[in-house]
Amino acid sequence: MDNLFKYDSVGLNSGKDGVVILDQTLLPGKEEFIVLKDEYQVRDAIATLKVRGAPAIGVAAAYGIYVAFRNLPDPHSSEESVKEFRRIYDMLLSSRPTAVNLAYALKRMMRRFNDCKPLPHGEVVMALLEEAEAIKSEDMACCRAIAENGAGLITRPGMGILTHCNAGHLAVSRYGTALGPVYLAHSRGLDPVVYADETRPLLQGARITAFELMNAGVDVTLLCDNMSASLMASGKIDMVMVGCDRIAANGDVANKVGTSAVAVLAKYYGIPFYVLGPESTIDPDCADGSAIPIEMRESNEVTELYSGQRTAPEGVKVYNPAFDVTPSELVSGIITEKGIYGYPYDFSTLKHC
Amino acid sequence: MDNLFKYDSVGLNSGKDGVVILDQTLLPGKEEFIVLKDEYQVRDAIATLKVRGAPAIGVAAAYGIYVAFRNLPDPHSSEESVKEFRRIYDMLLSSRPTAVNLAYALKRMMRRFNDCKPLPHGEVVMALLEEAEAIKSEDMACCRAIAENGAGLITRPGMGILTHCNAGHLAVSRYGTALGPVYLAHSRGLDPVVYADETRPLLQGARITAFELMNAGVDVTLLCDNMSASLMASGKIDMVMVGCDRIAANGDVANKVGTSAVAVLAKYYGIPFYVLGPESTIDPDCADGSAIPIEMRESNEVTELYSGQRTAPEGVKVYNPAFDVTPSELVSGIITEKGIYGYPYDFSTLKHC
Repeated sequence: MDNLFKYDSVGLNSGKDGVVILDQTLLPGKEEFIVLKDEYQVRDAIATLKVRGAPAIGVAAAYGIYVAFRNLPDPHSSEESVKEFRRIYDMLLSSRPTAVNLAYALKRMMRRFNDCKPLPHGEVVMALLEEAEAIKSEDMACCRAIAENGAGLITRPGMGILTHCNAGHLAVSRYGTALGPVYLAHSRGLDPVVYADETRPLLQGARITAFELMNAGVDVTLLCDNMSASLMASGKIDMVMVGCDRIAANGDVANKVGTSAVAVLAKYYGIPFYVLGPESTIDPDCADGSAIPIEMRESNEVTELYSGQRTAPEGVKVYNPAFDVTPSELVSGIITEKGIYGYPYDFSTLKHC
Repeated sequence: MDNLFKYDSVGLNSGKDGVVILDQTLLPGKEEFIVLKDEYQVRDAIATLKVRGAPAIGVAAAYGIYVAFRNLPDPHSSEESVKEFRRIYDMLLSSRPTAVNLAYALKRMMRRFNDCKPLPHGEVVMALLEEAEAIKSEDMACCRAIAENGAGLITRPGMGILTHCNAGHLAVSRYGTALGPVYLAHSRGLDPVVYADETRPLLQGARITAFELMNAGVDVTLLCDNMSASLMASGKIDMVMVGCDRIAANGDVANKVGTSAVAVLAKYYGIPFYVLGPESTIDPDCADGSAIPIEMRESNEVTELYSGQRTAPEGVKVYNPAFDVTPSELVSGIITEKGIYGYPYDFSTLKHC
């Protein structure tokens, strides 16, 4: 499956003094990589969605901690070091509130930092690099396992799979979560047929999902978000596969706004609805979806389209949540690197290592 | 309620040799009226959605028949006259396939034409004008009655009403269908709170519904189509009110694509879902929704946004139906000028006069 992808969307530059990301806001018109040299640039890249996708954000933040900490003058006191780490940590954590992977990656970096506090600065920096690289390679291994677990559901050639937003290889270190099984089935000659919701307001489905699937030679058809009901009624959809930003202990799923609508429609039309993501997306401390903070974004994302052209009256009020919560009863299965969980879900005792 | 509206969106010019329409493709940036001087211009205005909304299209086509027939040289033979009428009729009928009001208005014009065939050309022209004016004023009376019938459902101040696409005063001769009750409740001081789906791909909700409601002083909030599930889950929506392009004998409803998705969501969240339109929208000859032709539109409406800027990869396949069919079991009530019908529906014996 690896030969399907030209590059990864997030990594380190060769000098290891910057985080390299594909600027996803420029897709599909332009494939441009940019280098983020400090914590401010990393935070802004996450907040403005230049890097996006819950796992990719986690990896970018982990590298961001390393790069920012590497930039600190040496020598300095242990107190200064802790204070600086905390400042960088808090800044990156605040860049987006909903995805739990961001907090998870940062917490791992914090733990590693705490473990090596008696060490000199240079060695702490090396330990942080090691941890960030580990987070990335574990994410890749995770996605590979998710792809294998999900691919088992794609049993016949030409099955129709609806997806929402982008949970493909550009949203993670490689392979993708929701699209991992599609790529694997494609590489095995099963020719899955993907229908991609465009995903307003920022059009990740049109700009990114359609783009990466076409690049990999997968059959993809684009539709507006409000057309999925009509497509399901026509019988063309065999299953829905979406990613996730946070899963509560009871299986409620926070993902890109519109996901819960797709889930309700899938239930009505008798179509299985699968959520795919690494175990790190599961937050056992969130009892249910009501405890997940939902990021509200600026109104101009809705009123000015993606291009900056205004298409709604000046001064109109706007409702623009970035995510919604899909009730767990609508989720046919949650697919992680460990396997497929079925309803009812109980992740309250799950421990992240 | 009349003082809420600055103008009607369709009519005749003062010389009565042209159909005047508000060019709705330019909203909300520009309020420009254009004059359509022949059947070609009327057909194009309908096909390119300069005039839109099922009842408004019917009125524009009726005036179009009159203007086109008035343009014919006189004297000519009765055979020529019939042939020309048929040509104009067919041309206008082909402009959009789904809305039944277009066919209904044209059929009325045809009947009137047939009734006066022994008359000289000038008198036929006058009869056609009379019929077109009657269609418009009946549409106004209809909408007024629909507004009264629907307003009875808005029982408390500040009720939240979700609507999809535009079925307001710009979609009809005046008042609106889905928005008629909102305007009436507003004029009675009940301050309804409207949530308007933006309605991709052509953004009638953002460009037209938000525009006309703001102009009339109604509290309106805009959202992307995929956000209505989240809004319903939050408890802010008390009912859904939408228009319709054709209603089958069993109550299946063809309306702007995405309507059926809203209906499924409303059912899941226990919110009543009402369809509003004149009786002429009901097609007793269509047994059910599967018999309603669904217009498929060009892919660039989806891939280039409204502004012409490309946001999807070149060559991507696109699914772009203009309408979908809401199964009648999801429709809590169909509100016409005659009253409110409840499920199960049977319009098979309905006669249009």
